[in-house]
Amino acid sequence: MSKFWSKRTHELDPYTPGEQPQDRQYIKLNTNENPYPPSPKAIDAMRAAADENMRLYPDPAAASLKQAIADYYSLNTNQVFVGNSSDEVLAHTFVALLKHDKPLLYPDISYSFYPSYCSLFGINAKPIPLKDDFTIAVDDYKQGNGGIIFPNPNAPSGIALSLDEIEQILRANPDSAVVIDEAYVDFGADTATPLIKDYPNLLITQTFSKSRSLAGLRVGFAMGNQELIEGLERVKNSFNSYPLDRAAIAGATASIKDKDYFIQTRDKIIDTREKTSRALGQMGFDILPSAANFVFAKPLHHDAETLYKQLKQNGVLVRYFNAPRITDYLRITIGTDEEMAILLEKLSELL
Amino acid sequence: MSKFWSKRTHELDPYTPGEQPQDRQYIKLNTNENPYPPSPKAIDAMRAAADENMRLYPDPAAASLKQAIADYYSLNTNQVFVGNSSDEVLAHTFVALLKHDKPLLYPDISYSFYPSYCSLFGINAKPIPLKDDFTIAVDDYKQGNGGIIFPNPNAPSGIALSLDEIEQILRANPDSAVVIDEAYVDFGADTATPLIKDYPNLLITQTFSKSRSLAGLRVGFAMGNQELIEGLERVKNSFNSYPLDRAAIAGATASIKDKDYFIQTRDKIIDTREKTSRALGQMGFDILPSAANFVFAKPLHHDAETLYKQLKQNGVLVRYFNAPRITDYLRITIGTDEEMAILLEKLSELL
Repeated sequence: MSKFWSKRTHELDPYTPGEQPQDRQYIKLNTNENPYPPSPKAIDAMRAAADENMRLYPDPAAASLKQAIADYYSLNTNQVFVGNSSDEVLAHTFVALLKHDKPLLYPDISYSFYPSYCSLFGINAKPIPLKDDFTIAVDDYKQGNGGIIFPNPNAPSGIALSLDEIEQILRANPDSAVVIDEAYVDFGADTATPLIKDYPNLLITQTFSKSRSLAGLRVGFAMGNQELIEGLERVKNSFNSYPLDRAAIAGATASIKDKDYFIQTRDKIIDTREKTSRALGQMGFDILPSAANFVFAKPLHHDAETLYKQLKQNGVLVRYFNAPRITDYLRITIGTDEEMAILLEKLSELL
Repeated sequence: MSKFWSKRTHELDPYTPGEQPQDRQYIKLNTNENPYPPSPKAIDAMRAAADENMRLYPDPAAASLKQAIADYYSLNTNQVFVGNSSDEVLAHTFVALLKHDKPLLYPDISYSFYPSYCSLFGINAKPIPLKDDFTIAVDDYKQGNGGIIFPNPNAPSGIALSLDEIEQILRANPDSAVVIDEAYVDFGADTATPLIKDYPNLLITQTFSKSRSLAGLRVGFAMGNQELIEGLERVKNSFNSYPLDRAAIAGATASIKDKDYFIQTRDKIIDTREKTSRALGQMGFDILPSAANFVFAKPLHHDAETLYKQLKQNGVLVRYFNAPRITDYLRITIGTDEEMAILLEKLSELL
């Protein structure tokens, strides 16, 4: 509390990212990082960009990166927005497109940054309960609203909606921006990008942090109708003209162009996820069907929080959320086969 | 205009950065970039950080960078805030510390991003006219307000306030945050950092873009009382947990530790500025006394806008502001001696 703080600052409910303990080396399965390094071409591009030209401002429009994303998804560059992580892209989206008099709808169990944005920007939110099986109740998004946002697949459940269900939501809300946060889409859900041409109310956000192994580079993007992108650009240009540095533009551009490497590492993670899910099932976990690079796992005969603590003592970090309805679950990031073998070994000792 | 945009987005007045034309190679004296490359140690550090660990999130607190800045200025790390450029740091400052019921005061001729932040965040601003000689009228900042911000030295004038004048403003406003934007301070003004211990209302922002030759890396920071820094952290953690990527943290940390290189390049720019100012004076320009890496120059016998266009045609970019009271001036960044010689040669042909 401080007399210098704005009223808004006193009321904030800041987001808490996953722990990054420095006390020892952990097998880190708690923040959904990719176990494989970024594309070697991305590393080369970042290093090449770290040269004497760092004295000069980067391209404020990051045109090369927008072009590479547009090429990848068969869009025009004016349908692409880029920013300093998908968190920044989401923040600008909340200001530009989701702040209206009517309430913003999002799932009650979802990315826990959404309520933080609402408190920061003074947005009236109406969280919509997931069904008991943790799926999104599509019909609940057919009520009056000022905007809609949900991840697909959802977090921390990992459960995906079909494009057919997404189209139902888009059709029911022609006057609202419907934002689909596709942070984890590459691991098994269908991207809604093919729907952009038919739905001017659709905005999709994605990130280089997960399937592209670039969490350390902080690059995210949004795709949608030119009018929505223009709204984001207006907010961005009132906030920070050059959000992406030279290394970030170069690395992300090279990364999205290296499709072979992307497919190879993505497929390995999906394979490891399926094997891990089966093994956890056999060990007495209830596993939600995941389309992401993590599984949401309920130990049927053990206390989840205790198990989280025991795993941490044994050098394996997973994520436990002390939040309503999900206190019985652990969110476990999919690492390499070797890392998951150690997790299973430790679990077999603990269970 | 779009039905999907928020009301705020319709009302925005986005900032316009200096032009970055791609049509030909220019001598770029228009965006106050440093003509010298960053410290070789910073380049090495950025390259080393661009490795396989880019798959992992960066330190959300950027502790190593905060420590290096704290060491440099003899502060504690809890008196330091870092962000993705000083523009992002300023944006968070406007939300956290400068948005109150009473109006925010800033000079009418100043960094033109301030009004953009006010329109983005709905802040009530009261611009205070500079005196006719473009100096800040200290007594005008002794009226009721919800916050104060000004650059020192001011932009685009380049004119600095003394620490004594700054203390007058700090003493007159014990209940308001007084933010000093020291983007250009290293080139000849006195930093107010020694005043932090005595004034809990003082916040100082700085950047690695100018005196550290890292405009392409996007790193800025703020320094002040722990309570002010905590307000900024609250806003940052409601916006983007990890604003600085791994290359940015590493490069900026190495840069601020390389004091010898910093002094050497800074001194060269100051020397070139003084020589250039004298030469421009002899050619019929009125030059405001600059403590920055640019000069604000009024051609006494020529139209400034015409001269800007003629210089551009001749391959030299300077900045012209089509704004009240300063239409007779050009802002000229200080480049190398060689670049300034070409500017002077082109001017001698045109004048």
